[in-house]
Amino acid sequence: MLRAGIVVTGTEVLTGRVADANGPWLSEHLREAGIDVAHICVCGDRKDDLLAQLQFLTDQGVDLIITSGGLGPTADDMTLPTVAEFADTTLVFDAALEAAIMDRLRPMADRWENVDWEALRVGIAKQALVPARGQILDPVGTAPGAIVTAGKVVIVVLPGPPHELQRMWPAVVRAEPFRGLVGDDAVAIEQTILRLYGITEPDIAETLRLAEEALGSLAALEITTCLRRSEVEVVTRFEPSARPAWERLHEFIATRHGAALFSSDGSTVDQVVAALLRGRRLAVAESCTAGLLGARIADVPGSSAYFLGGVISYANDVKIGQLQVDPQLLATHGAVSPQVAAAMADGVLTALGADIAVSTTGVAGPGGGSPDKPVGTVCFCVKTVAGERADLRVVIPGNRNQIRERATTVALHLLRRLLQQ
Amino acid sequence: MLRAGIVVTGTEVLTGRVADANGPWLSEHLREAGIDVAHICVCGDRKDDLLAQLQFLTDQGVDLIITSGGLGPTADDMTLPTVAEFADTTLVFDAALEAAIMDRLRPMADRWENVDWEALRVGIAKQALVPARGQILDPVGTAPGAIVTAGKVVIVVLPGPPHELQRMWPAVVRAEPFRGLVGDDAVAIEQTILRLYGITEPDIAETLRLAEEALGSLAALEITTCLRRSEVEVVTRFEPSARPAWERLHEFIATRHGAALFSSDGSTVDQVVAALLRGRRLAVAESCTAGLLGARIADVPGSSAYFLGGVISYANDVKIGQLQVDPQLLATHGAVSPQVAAAMADGVLTALGADIAVSTTGVAGPGGGSPDKPVGTVCFCVKTVAGERADLRVVIPGNRNQIRERATTVALHLLRRLLQQ
Repeated sequence: MLRAGIVVTGTEVLTGRVADANGPWLSEHLREAGIDVAHICVCGDRKDDLLAQLQFLTDQGVDLIITSGGLGPTADDMTLPTVAEFADTTLVFDAALEAAIMDRLRPMADRWENVDWEALRVGIAKQALVPARGQILDPVGTAPGAIVTAGKVVIVVLPGPPHELQRMWPAVVRAEPFRGLVGDDAVAIEQTILRLYGITEPDIAETLRLAEEALGSLAALEITTCLRRSEVEVVTRFEPSARPAWERLHEFIATRHGAALFSSDGSTVDQVVAALLRGRRLAVAESCTAGLLGARIADVPGSSAYFLGGVISYANDVKIGQLQVDPQLLATHGAVSPQVAAAMADGVLTALGADIAVSTTGVAGPGGGSPDKPVGTVCFCVKTVAGERADLRVVIPGNRNQIRERATTVALHLLRRLLQQ
Repeated sequence: MLRAGIVVTGTEVLTGRVADANGPWLSEHLREAGIDVAHICVCGDRKDDLLAQLQFLTDQGVDLIITSGGLGPTADDMTLPTVAEFADTTLVFDAALEAAIMDRLRPMADRWENVDWEALRVGIAKQALVPARGQILDPVGTAPGAIVTAGKVVIVVLPGPPHELQRMWPAVVRAEPFRGLVGDDAVAIEQTILRLYGITEPDIAETLRLAEEALGSLAALEITTCLRRSEVEVVTRFEPSARPAWERLHEFIATRHGAALFSSDGSTVDQVVAALLRGRRLAVAESCTAGLLGARIADVPGSSAYFLGGVISYANDVKIGQLQVDPQLLATHGAVSPQVAAAMADGVLTALGADIAVSTTGVAGPGGGSPDKPVGTVCFCVKTVAGERADLRVVIPGNRNQIRERATTVALHLLRRLLQQ
């Protein structure tokens, strides 16, 4: 099996100001091409560190190295000259490329006020310096990519902005050095994802141990489990020949955790809920999540077919004024209570003419907790016009953002369970 | 200056299913301790790859290696035995630690239905195996951490869940091997962040070139620029002795880009807007952003002092019913129009009794675009009860999520500019 290494450059990634999106994306797309990623390395905009990583990956015997970032117009971007040095080639100025970049940039720049054209020209001239020995990948934004070889290793140099990198990828896959490496008989590693809700990681660990006893060795399956967004994910990677082993494992898990297993085809709870909502009219009433739930529902393309919208009732006045929550209810039980959650769901059902509604009200912290209702306490209610109803009160661990984020997941599962009844 | 390497383990991170939050967090906290991070390496749950990364970082001469992840109860978690092997020590069973982990887990497990206690016990026994030579860090969740030395290199082994890792960090900083490394006279590298809105990366590149000409060498400053969430960030890292050079650079940039520079102290537009909103009562009316803007405003702790809430008017019926948008206006101009954006702002001002409101309506795609209003077209309006008003219509590049995400940034800047007038 071919092995690859990914080098993500950029002091902004290394120092934590920007989360890297390219390593994961490349990893997934290399898997689809039958290439296993062994290492992702992040370094700053420093030549020596970049050279060290290129050498490390070469020493590890990878067949392919992909770099992302460091192709911009500014002086701190130095990936291409460094890779050229590593591959023992030089940079040459490409006048046609310079013209092409200028053509791309002009319509964008025309929309900006006060463009400094001289600054643009200097930056473009830098970006038009490309390896003498190697293949150029046409720019998607203003930075061209490149493919060069260093000994037996193919090095693909891609820009840092994720949308540029992603749009340049098809050209990489088509390019001769990449195709020569992968060959025509490349076999993609299969990857399956099971998602479970309402069990712990130790539960699934025990299930995997029992499966090994009952089914024999699972060595052909690379199984990883992780707890994520309050769900347990079981991800299995295997070569096509191991599919029967995977199917036996899947059946074993489904039998043991039937109620918890909500997705076997990789779909997320967001997608499961979206499918269940077809033909419905959903409204949300959000207090502590303050729009996160609505935003997550609307993340799914086509959600306008069933998502009407909702009310962010962060202040009690909005709960009373927009959702007709009885002030007496707020005074008696407090804003974070099953009673108010139910009243919010009723209110938004009526106000928006929905046929199903979900509400959230909780203490996201850091302040506002009490012995009765510690930080993390969230009440949920799902109601339908037909009178179906599901209530939940939980204490969610974590900080403010984690509590609000996890509360949206809990709300989606409550919605899913009611819709699946 | 001390240099560190970070090793992030986990096939779920390597294969892109989970974004790594620990590398960036550790990087920032090491900087504060005066330690420069040279490399972040990600590998899967594979012993040989993990050993190779530990060796690479050692070969690079780092003083400190921090690993995250691979300490869980399941068989695929193998960081601690691998680090022990690298450091030439063995694992021993710690009965007191086993008891402590069980004490931690019991109240959590009691809340779950159908707990498999036998599964829990097997997992805990695995987590109670710790290096014979080294220091144990008490578990925050169920996984203990550890500090061991391998030759001159100090290796800190931390759990993968970010909240566990972060809460374990103070114990690392207090531990003798870490203190011995950092010493009493460690000097933190300073880091400053300038944020600008409404200029391009080439603009700032040109400014930096001119600054070099005008002010002399900027070699003592490590300057990186990046475009992020529609803003240009200029991040400068320097030793304390270079602060005067930084101050001259800051003044140079402020003079050239006074209108665009909205933050010099590291604060985000979210924080700038939060400060400007004190004493106000804000409401939002969201169509294409569908709650993202409200959620982002409520991200700031204490936002309940000025954030009332709002209406997610995803469907036109909700714009009409909840925000009193004239159906004739929708028919004449379409939902994505400056007229409807203004009517939405008016509607939510009145409905919620706010004194300032911001609205968004746009085409997030992938469908719904037209020649007049291509995908990415978003109209914004900010209005106050006193009659101040700001309107904007832009075409935002990117995919559905990027458009919605960037639209929230644009809305915050429109709000900021009106509040700063």
